Amino acid sequence: MIYFDNAATTKPSSSALDRAKVFNEDMFFNPSALYAGGLMCAKEIKNAKDSVLKNLGAVNHEVIFTSCGTESDNTAIFGSVRRGTFVTDEGEHSAVYKSFSELKNRGNNVCFIPLKKYGAVDENILYNYVENNKTDFVSIVHVNNETGAINDINSIAARLKKINPALIFHADGVQAYGKIPYRISADIDLYSISSHKINGLKGTGALIRKKNVSISPIIIGGGQENDKRSGTENVFGIKVFEYAGEEHYNKLNENFFKAEQVKNAIINLLDKDIFHIISGENSSPYILSVSAKGLRGEVIMHSLEEYGIIVGNGSACSSKNRYSRVIQACGYKKDVLDGVIRLSFDFSNTVDEAVFVAEKLNEVSRRLKGII
Amino acid sequence: MIYFDNAATTKPSSSALDRAKVFNEDMFFNPSALYAGGLMCAKEIKNAKDSVLKNLGAVNHEVIFTSCGTESDNTAIFGSVRRGTFVTDEGEHSAVYKSFSELKNRGNNVCFIPLKKYGAVDENILYNYVENNKTDFVSIVHVNNETGAINDINSIAARLKKINPALIFHADGVQAYGKIPYRISADIDLYSISSHKINGLKGTGALIRKKNVSISPIIIGGGQENDKRSGTENVFGIKVFEYAGEEHYNKLNENFFKAEQVKNAIINLLDKDIFHIISGENSSPYILSVSAKGLRGEVIMHSLEEYGIIVGNGSACSSKNRYSRVIQACGYKKDVLDGVIRLSFDFSNTVDEAVFVAEKLNEVSRRLKGII
Repeated sequence: MIYFDNAATTKPSSSALDRAKVFNEDMFFNPSALYAGGLMCAKEIKNAKDSVLKNLGAVNHEVIFTSCGTESDNTAIFGSVRRGTFVTDEGEHSAVYKSFSELKNRGNNVCFIPLKKYGAVDENILYNYVENNKTDFVSIVHVNNETGAINDINSIAARLKKINPALIFHADGVQAYGKIPYRISADIDLYSISSHKINGLKGTGALIRKKNVSISPIIIGGGQENDKRSGTENVFGIKVFEYAGEEHYNKLNENFFKAEQVKNAIINLLDKDIFHIISGENSSPYILSVSAKGLRGEVIMHSLEEYGIIVGNGSACSSKNRYSRVIQACGYKKDVLDGVIRLSFDFSNTVDEAVFVAEKLNEVSRRLKGII
Repeated sequence: MIYFDNAATTKPSSSALDRAKVFNEDMFFNPSALYAGGLMCAKEIKNAKDSVLKNLGAVNHEVIFTSCGTESDNTAIFGSVRRGTFVTDEGEHSAVYKSFSELKNRGNNVCFIPLKKYGAVDENILYNYVENNKTDFVSIVHVNNETGAINDINSIAARLKKINPALIFHADGVQAYGKIPYRISADIDLYSISSHKINGLKGTGALIRKKNVSISPIIIGGGQENDKRSGTENVFGIKVFEYAGEEHYNKLNENFFKAEQVKNAIINLLDKDIFHIISGENSSPYILSVSAKGLRGEVIMHSLEEYGIIVGNGSACSSKNRYSRVIQACGYKKDVLDGVIRLSFDFSNTVDEAVFVAEKLNEVSRRLKGII
C-alpha cells in the first residue's frame, strides 16, 4: 500500500505507542488522584506540555490538552470572546468555518475574508476590514488543509495587533505542527494542534494559549487542565502526542526536505495536458492538490485503490459534499472542482512511491479520458 | 499493589487493547475517508455502537461517541434544551453539578434536589418540585460516584414523564454501565457512559440518545457522528470501549457477585468503633464509602500506600476540596467528612485483598488514634 492521505490522518508511530504503553499498564492512574501514581501521571502531563511548548519555541504560552483539533478550534472560538465581530477566511477547515457560521447564527458580526489563488488569505482585504471594523477575534489557518497554502500567521497577527491591539488572534495549526518550521510569536493568542496528524493517536489535541488570554471552557466538570477543559486527562494519548511530536521535531528539516522531494517528483511527472496543479509554489511540502480537469476525483481515487494507492479527494471531513468549499474559494469552476485530488505525505513516503503514483495517476486518467 | 480506586479509573484491559491494536496499525484510516479502509473504519464504529445498544437493551436509542463522560454530560445538558428550568440533585458528579451552576449563571432557573442519607436523590421532593414547576430538563445520576447509591432512574423518569411528558430526562450512567444490571427504558432521553471506568481507555465516552431527542452539538466542525459531535472519530478508543464493554457484559452478574463479596468482606471486618459506613445497603457493590471519624482520610490514604494499597479519598475529580460536597449533602458533619475514604472495586479484586485492606485500615487508624 502507498498511503498518500496523511493530511486526513497518519499511521500512529509504533515507537511512540511503545514508549507510552506503560500508561495503560503499571501507570494507568487518574492524574487527579492524590497518591503517588496519580501525582506521577500529573507530572507526566506537565512534561508533555513542556515538550509541546519547546517544539513551538513558546515562552509566553501554556498548553490545554483537548480531545482533538476540532475541540481546540471550538474552545478558542467560543471560549475567548463572548460576543462581537469575528473574522476568518474562506480557506478554513470546517472546525473553524462551521463554528463561525454558528457564531453568525447566534447574532454575531462575522466576516469571511476571500482567498488568493493558491488558497492563502487575501491579507490586504483582511487588514482593510480590520482597519474599518472594530474586530474582536480573528482566526486564520496556518497551513490550508486542502491546498497546503501557508499563511504567515506571525506576520499577519503582528500587523493586525498594530491596527487593534485588543483583538484575539487564533490560528488553526493542525497541518503545521510537526511539519513546518515555526516559532510561535507573542502575537499569537491561541493555536490549535492535533496528534493524529503527526503519527500520534486520534482523540488527542491541544490548544496553546497565551498566558494572559482568558478562556471559558466549553466542557465543564472536575476542573482538569486548570479549569479550562474538564474530563479525566487522556494520559496515554497525551504521552503518545508528546513522543510523536519529539520524533517529528528531531527531524523536522530532514522530513521537510524529503516531503519536498516527494511532492516535486509528482508535480514533475504529472501529465500537464490532464492535470492542473492547484497548490502554489510556497505551499507546505506535505500537501499537493491537483485536478484532472473534466474527470471526477472520486473515480480516480477508486481507480488508484486497485493499485494499492490511497489518495484523498478534498478534505476527508467534508467528503460528503461534491465540491470542495475551499478550492471553490480559490476561484475554480466546475471543470476543475470535479477532478480534485489531494495527495498528502508524511516522513515515511519515498520518491519511488511518488514516481509510481504519478505514473498511475497519468495512466488511470488517460484511460478514463479515453486517450489510451 | 492492591488497587481499590476503580471508580476514579480502571486498568485498561490488555485483551481489549490487543484486539483493538489493528486500528493503530493496518486499519489506522480516517473513518470519513471514502476509500475502502475509511469505509471499513466507519463500519467498525457502527458495530461498536450496536454493541453499546445491545448492552443496554436499547431499542429506541442511538449512540454518539464523545471524548469522555464529562463531554457526554455537557452535551446532554447544554445541547438539548436552550433555556428554561433545569433540575438535578446534590449528589451529581462535577460534570453535571458544575454544568448546572453554569446554567444558573446564564440566567436559567436551576434547582438542586436534596439527597437522602445514603446519597440517593430524595424522590418525593423531586416529584413535588416538578409537579409545581414547569420543568424542561432533569438530570439524575444513575450510580452516585462517591457513596454508590443507586437511583432507580427508569422508575424516576417514568414518574416524571407522567407529570410532564415534555421534559427531557438525562442520567449520568458512568458508574453504572458495565457494572449494574440495567436495561434503558424509553423514558430515558439521554444517558452518559465512559470507557475508562470499565477497563477501557481514557479519552472515550458516549452519549446515548433517544432517537426523537434533538441535540445541538457543543463541538462543531466536519459533521462526524451525524453532526452531533465533530472531530475525527477515535476509532482505536471506540473499539477498546466496545471490547471492554463486551468483557464486562459477558460476566456482568458474576462480577457483580464478586464485587459484593469484596465489599461485604471489608464492611464486616472494619472496626466499627472507628469506622462509620456511609454507603447504604442497596448501593453499588463496586463502591464503598466509609469514614474514620476524627481522622483525616488523606492521612489514612497515604499510610495505606506504604503497604501497597491504593484507595481514594472522595472523588478524584474534586480531590482539591477538603470536604466532599456529596457526602456533605448526605447530611454529615465535619467529624465524618474529614475521615472519608472511598474504596472502589473491579472484577479483578479478591476477597483476600479485601481482608488485607480491612486489616490494614483498622491497624493504621488505630495507630493514628493512638490506640495501639
